Amino acid sequence: MPRFRLIVEYDGTDYVGWQRQDNGPSVQGAIEKAVLSLTGETVRVRGAGRTDSGVHARGQVAHLDLTRAWKPYTLQNALNAHLSLAGERVSILEVEEAAADFDARFSAIRRHYLYRIISRRSPLALEARRAWWVPKALDHDAMHEAAQRLLGHHDFTTFRSANCQATSPMRTLDRLDVTRTGDLIEIRASAQSFLHNQIRSFAGSLKLVGESKWTPDNLQAALEARDRKACGPVAPPDGLYFMRVDY
Amino acid sequence: MPRFRLIVEYDGTDYVGWQRQDNGPSVQGAIEKAVLSLTGETVRVRGAGRTDSGVHARGQVAHLDLTRAWKPYTLQNALNAHLSLAGERVSILEVEEAAADFDARFSAIRRHYLYRIISRRSPLALEARRAWWVPKALDHDAMHEAAQRLLGHHDFTTFRSANCQATSPMRTLDRLDVTRTGDLIEIRASAQSFLHNQIRSFAGSLKLVGESKWTPDNLQAALEARDRKACGPVAPPDGLYFMRVDY
Repeated sequence: MPRFRLIVEYDGTDYVGWQRQDNGPSVQGAIEKAVLSLTGETVRVRGAGRTDSGVHARGQVAHLDLTRAWKPYTLQNALNAHLSLAGERVSILEVEEAAADFDARFSAIRRHYLYRIISRRSPLALEARRAWWVPKALDHDAMHEAAQRLLGHHDFTTFRSANCQATSPMRTLDRLDVTRTGDLIEIRASAQSFLHNQIRSFAGSLKLVGESKWTPDNLQAALEARDRKACGPVAPPDGLYFMRVDY
Repeated sequence: MPRFRLIVEYDGTDYVGWQRQDNGPSVQGAIEKAVLSLTGETVRVRGAGRTDSGVHARGQVAHLDLTRAWKPYTLQNALNAHLSLAGERVSILEVEEAAADFDARFSAIRRHYLYRIISRRSPLALEARRAWWVPKALDHDAMHEAAQRLLGHHDFTTFRSANCQATSPMRTLDRLDVTRTGDLIEIRASAQSFLHNQIRSFAGSLKLVGESKWTPDNLQAALEARDRKACGPVAPPDGLYFMRVDY
């Protein structure tokens, strides 16, 4: 059975998230349906990250096994044709053959996310559901400085959802950079893996720093509290993009 | 009656266009409704450009007269609150008081538009309805070179819609630049005023140049034909943004 690696872009707005669930359409389900229409095969598509409802992807990675040795180029075009026909907001950016032991989830050595905040007085018309609208001035330098306190190997209990299913709250955060271009503030986060809601928890807490409600010391104290109640309000999913995976 | 100048952003996807029409919701109508809810006054809002259905704006300019001397800041926030409440994809970016003889349409000395093309093999998920998807390689240098043949004062009959209501097809094109960043090709057009569908007609014809179906000479010959039938297929509205007006 040849194995294929896909790079996937999607608009997460109208999906329950990456993972198939009973309560609505998922990205995983959309791709599995496209594969079924194309090949007649019922496959399980496994993704590198189980993004939540409303979270977008520019570079989710997934793998699947098919009985036929499709040409990657043909498989990509055919899957995109089926996805478009079904009205899905999912696009397959790349397909390549993968080794039999490649696993989109477990072979990943680093995941990269982007969180977009637009800080301006007027609501978002063009960027609605593509960014978090914050109608306040934010000090991005203070946010960046504070973010550096979170780098390294820590117990991130404060910054994970109560529903997080990971067995350990320990993670190693490699990058958490905050930059600004005009009214767009971008937070870039990289780690081998993240806890559930970890980046949205970071974004929500960093916003408090940007508003000067928290100092960098407050953020560090929140981390050290190892207590979910110490977290700032979790940022909405609209601003979060799964960008890339390294293997 | 104090006069106010508004700068307006909108997602044109679900509107029949800027101008009020019988066949569906318009951006002008959305703003006039918000003014009515807020002030009880039935006003006519006049815009600098009557964008078509599906065309977006980051900097449309409009003016209106109110009986009360609103503080611009208060008026902006109140209009945005009413627009959001009504579920409109319209945002008022700025409000300022204007001179009694200011006219958003007739005082304009230059209008600036952007046309976005994404040239890649896979369909657009995140940028759907925000750009024209062209699944072909495009030579943007050839497009830029050809575009320069259109600059200056010409009879643009080839590049205007059969429905164009302007009395003269003569216009002076000040700028038509084509640049590329990754798979995004941006066409920037500036003139005192444009004919109906002029920029979408340019974009559609420049795409033929990008695909090497037309040479720059072919584009110039199309201009000189002064014949609508000489135009390339008109590009879709999704990629067009009304960016700014100079007064």
